[in-house]
Amino acid sequence: MNAKLQWLRNKMSSLNLQGIIISNPVNIKYLTKIDAEGTLVITPKENVFITDGRYIEHVHSILTLFDEIIVYDINDVSLDDYENFFMFCENVGFEENYITYAKYKEYKRIYKINNFVETEHIIEKQRMIKDEEEINSIKKACNITDECFKNILNYIKVGMTEKQIAKQIEDFYIENAEGISFEPIVASGENSSKPHAVPTDRKIQEQDIITIDMGCKINGYCSDMTRTIFVGEPSEEMRKIYEIVLNNNKFVLSQYKEGANTRQIAKMVENNFKLNGHNLIHGLGHGIGLEIHETPKINYKNDSTLKENMIISDEPGIYIPGKFGVRIEDTVQITKFSCISLTNSGKDLTII
Amino acid sequence: MNAKLQWLRNKMSSLNLQGIIISNPVNIKYLTKIDAEGTLVITPKENVFITDGRYIEHVHSILTLFDEIIVYDINDVSLDDYENFFMFCENVGFEENYITYAKYKEYKRIYKINNFVETEHIIEKQRMIKDEEEINSIKKACNITDECFKNILNYIKVGMTEKQIAKQIEDFYIENAEGISFEPIVASGENSSKPHAVPTDRKIQEQDIITIDMGCKINGYCSDMTRTIFVGEPSEEMRKIYEIVLNNNKFVLSQYKEGANTRQIAKMVENNFKLNGHNLIHGLGHGIGLEIHETPKINYKNDSTLKENMIISDEPGIYIPGKFGVRIEDTVQITKFSCISLTNSGKDLTII
Repeated sequence: MNAKLQWLRNKMSSLNLQGIIISNPVNIKYLTKIDAEGTLVITPKENVFITDGRYIEHVHSILTLFDEIIVYDINDVSLDDYENFFMFCENVGFEENYITYAKYKEYKRIYKINNFVETEHIIEKQRMIKDEEEINSIKKACNITDECFKNILNYIKVGMTEKQIAKQIEDFYIENAEGISFEPIVASGENSSKPHAVPTDRKIQEQDIITIDMGCKINGYCSDMTRTIFVGEPSEEMRKIYEIVLNNNKFVLSQYKEGANTRQIAKMVENNFKLNGHNLIHGLGHGIGLEIHETPKINYKNDSTLKENMIISDEPGIYIPGKFGVRIEDTVQITKFSCISLTNSGKDLTII
Repeated sequence: MNAKLQWLRNKMSSLNLQGIIISNPVNIKYLTKIDAEGTLVITPKENVFITDGRYIEHVHSILTLFDEIIVYDINDVSLDDYENFFMFCENVGFEENYITYAKYKEYKRIYKINNFVETEHIIEKQRMIKDEEEINSIKKACNITDECFKNILNYIKVGMTEKQIAKQIEDFYIENAEGISFEPIVASGENSSKPHAVPTDRKIQEQDIITIDMGCKINGYCSDMTRTIFVGEPSEEMRKIYEIVLNNNKFVLSQYKEGANTRQIAKMVENNFKLNGHNLIHGLGHGIGLEIHETPKINYKNDSTLKENMIISDEPGIYIPGKFGVRIEDTVQITKFSCISLTNSGKDLTII
């Protein structure tokens, strides 16, 4: 059995759960590497994956004997099978955010569960701390993202549309990685004032500012990086705001480490923004892993304490409505006494 | 208030529900034309749509005063508001298949609901019967699908890949409709033996059989049609199977009408297939509307009785593993005494 399933069994034992039903497909992928529709059922004796005919072959091609996972076609599971899975179990856990109320009732009935217990994101919490293999995948995705940025810097020319640049990013990631980890943002001129801008047919002009937010996947694990660049000499106002954002991106890097309180860090960035007459209008960062946005959420409303081998983003941004915006973002690994930025594209003010 | 919301209020009253919370986004679109993330809350006095900042502007642009729908930003809904929605309500309905167990508990708590009642697809069942406006949308989508098929017949040439043909279908639907209603199937040669084949890089050859399953959307409503065509003279075996499938497609058209039992019809098709040494390995049809697959499911395991103005598919198919397959499918409107095929592309054996 792999280390992640072993961890889960230890965790279950500490919570006095004799079984658990896992429905969140990302958690199933995390625990088993299985990327298919289905349900993972951990019984006192076995690990069972219940799927359907469409996926049986694919799942068998991923698993080895060492995995100790039994695969069932849902059409072959009898009512007796369901009953046997959790026979003599007192408490069985489930993921209350990933099953419908109808499924909850059905499971209670068919599995004959005595005490069906909400598990409050135990697996998502564990997913915050990455192991060596996971970190290596994210590192690779970050390296490819740095390469992609180099490629894009050479590619962008006045007259191209935002969509064209976004397409180039996607093509690069399809060729060099497992594709994008999210739809890239390419926001130029006044579009850059919207944090979640979608690429448009707007053409790059002389004197433009361009925000590029992008990432790819390796072994299912994501990277996430934002750079803001300039076409021709930026205005005094743009320079000033770029400097504030960059200073705060660097300040956050100096603060991220095991034990740091993220609410405090976000509060300090917010204070610095306010001192300069601006606001922090979105979160300062988020966990990165199999999903592009994972726990912890880093902002001045949430308390959370950083731990070694969390991978999180550091992404301060300032947006002047209707004019322009600047965001600088890195993917960062937390260590015992500091942190390591895994994205390493240059952050000095760049004019193309 | 529109006729669909009025229907819902009458239905609620007959079920002794004083309120209902609707979470299924397709049901929300059906009732209100709103196509945005959010929750529709029908209280004794009001129709309320709770959404977030991203959608407020879009939702307001769709609604008119006549709709009598109040739109809230979820961040502006206070605990008092939640409590007031269902004040003095005895029974409030919810969609047990569309809220998580966690949301179920949260809703019970914040809305202070006495008796939270499962509603067992009441809206999905109503959606089976289409009104004039809905039928007109589906008719248009079917006409465009017939046009697309004409276009494709002229487009296909030996040497093209399945993917290229699928791309041409998508482009046609983007230009002439609201895009595809599902990823088109273009399955040639031995690929046609898989009912759910995905287009590949396989090139069309002389003597090929090609199954094309496609549809588009108009006003959100879908069309669905399959034709199987031949490149050059088909083999005797192909001709024979084509004839069996076509005869059964026509037989089903002769049987579809108000009051018909779909299980019986499917059973007769299955019998005819068996008589000829083949099996019916998938459903014979399904409802078509805002979703490409809706209730009723038409097969020999499910009982259901057809009603006037249902729109369903008629899609018998025979598949010879590793060799080839034939499927012929129409989108059909049920009438009082017969039915009308809304897709009208020729079904006589076609050689290109």
